[in-house]
Amino acid sequence: NSYFKIAVLPGDGIGPEVVNESIKVLDAVAEIFQCSFQFSYGLMGAEAIFKTGDPLPDETLKICKDSDAVLFGAIGDPVFDNNPEAKVRPEQGLLKLRKELGLYANIRPLKTYASLIDKSPLKREIIEGTDIQIFRELVSGIYFGEKFTDPDGKYAYDVCKYSTEEIIPIAHMAFKEAEKRKKKLTLIDKANVLDTSRLWRKTCQKIAPQYPDVQLDYIFVDNAAMQLVLNPKQFDVILTENMFGDIISDEASVIGGSIGLLPSASIGEENALFEPIHGSYPQAKGKGIANPVASILSTAMMLDYLKLPEAADKLRRAVEHAIENRYVTVDLNAEQHYSTAEVGSFIADYI
Amino acid sequence: NSYFKIAVLPGDGIGPEVVNESIKVLDAVAEIFQCSFQFSYGLMGAEAIFKTGDPLPDETLKICKDSDAVLFGAIGDPVFDNNPEAKVRPEQGLLKLRKELGLYANIRPLKTYASLIDKSPLKREIIEGTDIQIFRELVSGIYFGEKFTDPDGKYAYDVCKYSTEEIIPIAHMAFKEAEKRKKKLTLIDKANVLDTSRLWRKTCQKIAPQYPDVQLDYIFVDNAAMQLVLNPKQFDVILTENMFGDIISDEASVIGGSIGLLPSASIGEENALFEPIHGSYPQAKGKGIANPVASILSTAMMLDYLKLPEAADKLRRAVEHAIENRYVTVDLNAEQHYSTAEVGSFIADYI
Ligand SMILES: CC(C)[C@H](C(=O)O)[C@@H](O)C(=O)O
Ligand SMILES: CC(C)[C@H](C(=O)O)[C@@H](O)C(=O)O
Repeated sequence: NSYFKIAVLPGDGIGPEVVNESIKVLDAVAEIFQCSFQFSYGLMGAEAIFKTGDPLPDETLKICKDSDAVLFGAIGDPVFDNNPEAKVRPEQGLLKLRKELGLYANIRPLKTYASLIDKSPLKREIIEGTDIQIFRELVSGIYFGEKFTDPDGKYAYDVCKYSTEEIIPIAHMAFKEAEKRKKKLTLIDKANVLDTSRLWRKTCQKIAPQYPDVQLDYIFVDNAAMQLVLNPKQFDVILTENMFGDIISDEASVIGGSIGLLPSASIGEENALFEPIHGSYPQAKGKGIANPVASILSTAMMLDYLKLPEAADKLRRAVEHAIENRYVTVDLNAEQHYSTAEVGSFIADYI
Repeated sequence: NSYFKIAVLPGDGIGPEVVNESIKVLDAVAEIFQCSFQFSYGLMGAEAIFKTGDPLPDETLKICKDSDAVLFGAIGDPVFDNNPEAKVRPEQGLLKLRKELGLYANIRPLKTYASLIDKSPLKREIIEGTDIQIFRELVSGIYFGEKFTDPDGKYAYDVCKYSTEEIIPIAHMAFKEAEKRKKKLTLIDKANVLDTSRLWRKTCQKIAPQYPDVQLDYIFVDNAAMQLVLNPKQFDVILTENMFGDIISDEASVIGGSIGLLPSASIGEENALFEPIHGSYPQAKGKGIANPVASILSTAMMLDYLKLPEAADKLRRAVEHAIENRYVTVDLNAEQHYSTAEVGSFIADYI
């Protein structure tokens, strides 16, 4: 099984530029590791709205469902961000894609890079050595519960709903990851207020005995938001529901000073999607200054998922090599810097 | 009207110790500013559960309703924190008190103290000069919406509901505060996903023309969680719903390095409650090491509310005097430090 169908959704803003570099790197991987990737492109996000009126055209969804994995760039465009009344929005495409592909676990590894630590807003001694893996539930909770606004616009509601079936798979995933790491799993919730949080706690408590080596802790989300800034090193694997995960993982992403480098994976039973965390960054679009590393590291997560761990490791080493040699884009070194394509080629050449 | 009835709820942990110092300071205020305070004590929190089985006895609620203002210490006890299955919990008392008193606006001012900036986990240049006022809606949203867990424990839900009537009063309060300050109001929401968030946006948009000098901005909660760490100085007045406010205000509280100093006010149409942010800190209970400043600054907010702004200012100056002269508790100066009561007396004497 060394032939893979990859759906490629470049999306908006700098998405196409960084995804291009991932493809370049995958071509190098194919050569060295004797495998082959077939790329099928799909429209998605604001680009798709402009061209088809639909942020997730059926055609795109079909390509994704037929693929072994999805490489995703970014979505979002100021046209929509500045117009909260827009009826059709890029985000709807992303949420629908997650749901349709059943991507229930969003995984974000978070490491500090020695050479970048001083770019963090936090002090070196607070963050040095931070190594966290966040598991965020991605296809349920208040994002996908019933929503209602009364026709007179007098009130509205959103329902946060969870079933044990929705919690169990991602909980197992997080426990397994903790077993491989420092054996510490922290569930972030608001069990002193919410019924759904208490369901998360009970469900994790029930699963815990299957992983006797893993220490399961609980922390309230407000306290977690403090502790991430005060002492991020206390965390190993974090597990949380969709809305809290959205907030906490974004907060966590800035502590290392390297948000431009952070990858993510969204995993389901039959599908998986890989995307950089940084978003569409429209101001940089088309300028060749975007940092391709987050997209390339997301591609490494994809290679792991496709059971090509050696290729994934090689890719990560290539990235580290580029960073150590200061062969980086302008965000990481204002004095001497290289273009998106140059950095991508440097990494591909190393492979 | 120079006679005030103050309900005093010392609560748990270090609550009684710090509230004691507030009373000491109020006695000094009474002398100098020719007014008088009558204190009525009530049980609340874990203490109340141990003694009466009820975290908010009717007697306590009555005292609060009859008062001009409530001084509150802290709630929370490890006995309950470590037992998520406890049927009666201290938090229930606090939530019920907020609802019964109609305390719809939780207000948290956030300033950095020059002499404490180096205690922050963030770098000096990031936080120096930060001055934020957070308005968190406190008696609605997912905290008080319908909750349900099915008897088999298979699923649960929590409903986040808002009406325009619940948004309008706190929005006006926040706009008015922004008018007095840097004229910048930021609404934190998740309007790209939630109907309730879109209701918040529309409601604030409708109110905005009444405050033509105030610039109203919107930011998604995930981005806000990042921006607070990356560049807190960009914020002036923040307005947000209950759950987001819980997370964001706690995150914000640690950036200045002075969480032990931060006060809060919870305001309603007819009642108001003042409490330090720091919580019950059970490890320090009874040791005389708790920092009374947050409680004393909460008392200053109470004096403002009671329309004694000169007394409030005097009290704030007294606190600054103590901090500048390093007459502080151990959390602020490990080498030379004073007890809770000594710091309280020093501040009272200055008045
Ligand atoms: C774009 C938005 C709907 C999305 C989310 O809230 O999930 C984004 O913030 C993310 O975290 O991927
Ligand atoms: C104790 C808890 C219920 C409470 C809340 O979530 O509101 C606390 O965290 C707070 O912010 O005052």
